[in-house]
Amino acid sequence: MPHPNFTADALHALTERFGERLKMTEAVREQHGRDESREGTVLPDAVLFAESEQDVVDALRLAQEYALPVVPWAAGSSLEGQLLPVQGGLSLDVSGLNQVLDVRPASFQATVQAGVTYPELNRQLRRGGLFFPVDPGAEASLGGMASTNASGTAAVRYGTTRDNILGLRVVLSGGEVLDLGSQARKTAAGYDLRGLFIGAEGTLGVITQLTVRLHPLPAHVAVLRAAFADIAQAAACAAHIMGAALQPERLELIDAGEIAAVNAYLGRDYPESPTLWMEFAAPTPGSLEETLGVARELCAESGGQGLQEAHSEAERAAVWEARHKAYYAITAQHPGHAFLTTDLCVPLEYLPELVAFSHGLAQESGLDTSVVGHVGDGNFHVTFHAPAEDAATWQAIHAVYDKMVTRALAAGGTCTGEHGVGLHKRGHLAREHGPALPYMRAVKAAFDPLGIMNPGKIF
Amino acid sequence: MPHPNFTADALHALTERFGERLKMTEAVREQHGRDESREGTVLPDAVLFAESEQDVVDALRLAQEYALPVVPWAAGSSLEGQLLPVQGGLSLDVSGLNQVLDVRPASFQATVQAGVTYPELNRQLRRGGLFFPVDPGAEASLGGMASTNASGTAAVRYGTTRDNILGLRVVLSGGEVLDLGSQARKTAAGYDLRGLFIGAEGTLGVITQLTVRLHPLPAHVAVLRAAFADIAQAAACAAHIMGAALQPERLELIDAGEIAAVNAYLGRDYPESPTLWMEFAAPTPGSLEETLGVARELCAESGGQGLQEAHSEAERAAVWEARHKAYYAITAQHPGHAFLTTDLCVPLEYLPELVAFSHGLAQESGLDTSVVGHVGDGNFHVTFHAPAEDAATWQAIHAVYDKMVTRALAAGGTCTGEHGVGLHKRGHLAREHGPALPYMRAVKAAFDPLGIMNPGKIF
Repeated sequence: MPHPNFTADALHALTERFGERLKMTEAVREQHGRDESREGTVLPDAVLFAESEQDVVDALRLAQEYALPVVPWAAGSSLEGQLLPVQGGLSLDVSGLNQVLDVRPASFQATVQAGVTYPELNRQLRRGGLFFPVDPGAEASLGGMASTNASGTAAVRYGTTRDNILGLRVVLSGGEVLDLGSQARKTAAGYDLRGLFIGAEGTLGVITQLTVRLHPLPAHVAVLRAAFADIAQAAACAAHIMGAALQPERLELIDAGEIAAVNAYLGRDYPESPTLWMEFAAPTPGSLEETLGVARELCAESGGQGLQEAHSEAERAAVWEARHKAYYAITAQHPGHAFLTTDLCVPLEYLPELVAFSHGLAQESGLDTSVVGHVGDGNFHVTFHAPAEDAATWQAIHAVYDKMVTRALAAGGTCTGEHGVGLHKRGHLAREHGPALPYMRAVKAAFDPLGIMNPGKIF
Repeated sequence: MPHPNFTADALHALTERFGERLKMTEAVREQHGRDESREGTVLPDAVLFAESEQDVVDALRLAQEYALPVVPWAAGSSLEGQLLPVQGGLSLDVSGLNQVLDVRPASFQATVQAGVTYPELNRQLRRGGLFFPVDPGAEASLGGMASTNASGTAAVRYGTTRDNILGLRVVLSGGEVLDLGSQARKTAAGYDLRGLFIGAEGTLGVITQLTVRLHPLPAHVAVLRAAFADIAQAAACAAHIMGAALQPERLELIDAGEIAAVNAYLGRDYPESPTLWMEFAAPTPGSLEETLGVARELCAESGGQGLQEAHSEAERAAVWEARHKAYYAITAQHPGHAFLTTDLCVPLEYLPELVAFSHGLAQESGLDTSVVGHVGDGNFHVTFHAPAEDAATWQAIHAVYDKMVTRALAAGGTCTGEHGVGLHKRGHLAREHGPALPYMRAVKAAFDPLGIMNPGKIF
């Protein structure tokens, strides 16, 4: 940790440069001292509201001069403690970098500032018939989504944030600005530093600008819902859908507990069984009907029951609202509890086994859990909950979680599919990539020699 | 360059370890002293035919001990001088690492050794109804394709090699083995070192094993061919196809000169005009017919003429054989000439302009050129040719090429879409990514502190 007086000098220099925009009030610091994770609040020494790339450059130049830790901040929606300033220092709020700078529809791309949220980008794109497909659920910023390689329900069709970023503009500690990647859809020009900053959780530098891929809004879309006797049956159906090359736009598993929570939270009446929510699209009504015909058959053969279809935009939006609010629905059921959501991702063939294994462990330990899964990707989330002060239950939760990670890694999977490492999964990352960690650290040192960029995260 | 006696010591130590498998005959060294690029031959001091990962480990341990340069080699099909041992040393031939280790159809993935070629992998996958979609044309090895982030005609639908590699196993100089990435389809676990090795052209280490994504073979497929009055019209039609979300499997532009060359080389009778070759697929015959209906309309509206369709597998294979042999067809027309193929990639909206600009410059300089383009990706190849000893013409070619690069970079594009940097594009890379180069070098130093891995390439 930097010497306290050194911090005071840094704050003085930052105040000289930024005046009123550097905030040190308790309220603002508290707001920037947490994310959506279970972790408590850790206050930064100050919060800077950047309004331009030049602000970021100047802030990082001063930070390097005074060895002041910097945590980039935008929407505050991360889940693994990424935003907590565990070594103090500056919370660098880039939510003011909120301009869609340039939309180039004929090239299917847009250049945006890092603080733009994906729903806002999509609102601005809509009339042009294009969209940015990654939808992590929360009102996430694109800079934050890049920093955790976020994904969501549409990754099965359009890939993750990584797959939808062409170029990045980043500021390094010390203030140097780099343009990484290209606006071309493909490049083989040297090392993929763009890819290195994606998923780096702000530990290599601050993303200020992104060029993202856009996709044509599909012309004809329908949602299918099918209920199953158990999760294994639902997962098997999902595998058949994938194998038939139907290219679902979305393919989501949601268990009975989550359905019940959503029904209560949103006043819905979905059947409270393990369910697949599937979206299909096609360029013509006829080809959509053909695709739906195959999907219906596969569902019926796999034991799917009570098949429901949603064709209007309002009906479809209602289903995805329910899916995106599943986490909030669960938290609303247990007021006063703290929550932990796992993010394991495994090769598809192991998904049913992992979900069953997790469920079994939780039951043995008397824990109440619920499951949602991006089953086309092998990524599933188990949500645990208990009162924050119930140490015994939290110990049991962590013991179960640890066994789940062990099993997922043995199956060739990863401890995090889309939420990142942050503070909470550093131990899991060491188990997953132990021999590679010294090389990750060497890469960090090449970009951030003083170690001031979001220190204490990932490693 | 290492001291010659040091090289002699290294060769002695390698011979002690590998015996007969270390070859120093002129013929073998010559075979490993070139690739498919225009560059002459540069002989390595020796060639090692590795048969296992342990061979690679031992070779790199000795190489580090004696500071001996190492150039990884497999199929020899790269185009930018990547394989030339410009600082001497060892050509490390991994073509003997040719086993498909594990196919996991239910997870849509396979684990293969680096020397397996993509056609061989696809031959082994075929009966299971799956395929690996990246098709750079030559009989490339998967390790080599990863090292240049190769792509080809199917990238418009399935992405590049980068998008289809889940995990890599690599050996570093010194012999350390790292597993990078994951077998999961998504991961957000730390820095993407997997992505760093993709496109690194063997300068960071040697890839020995890859876990690749597989895709279901589409059930119903058709090829459309349409001729256009000029290239701009053909490119505009391609843009309409992309915008209609028809998701072509392939979308290729081929100019009149290339068609003429292919007709002569393969005895075909394709109309000798700028042409689009398009492939579409669908899960049912009905939905394929719907897609084709839209595509036919878009072609007609864009001035496409003489629409031809190929539905049988043999007819479709004939079209793609012609496309994959276009380069060889051109070289066959000009015996004794040397060839240079550019690899610019630009945002889609700039493609027609760049192609016209390139064509105009070539005409002004009296140069004979031909063009093929992956027009769904904005990537196009102009082939120049002249007798190797015709210095004046080569000077003119390089002057045109240089202006093309300038224009492509100004349009936000890249100097290489899929062939990589190698020896030939180091100057172009410096123009494209100058400020980032010191960071690329620092990354290299983190993995290869002595700088013995494929020295002289990329930078």
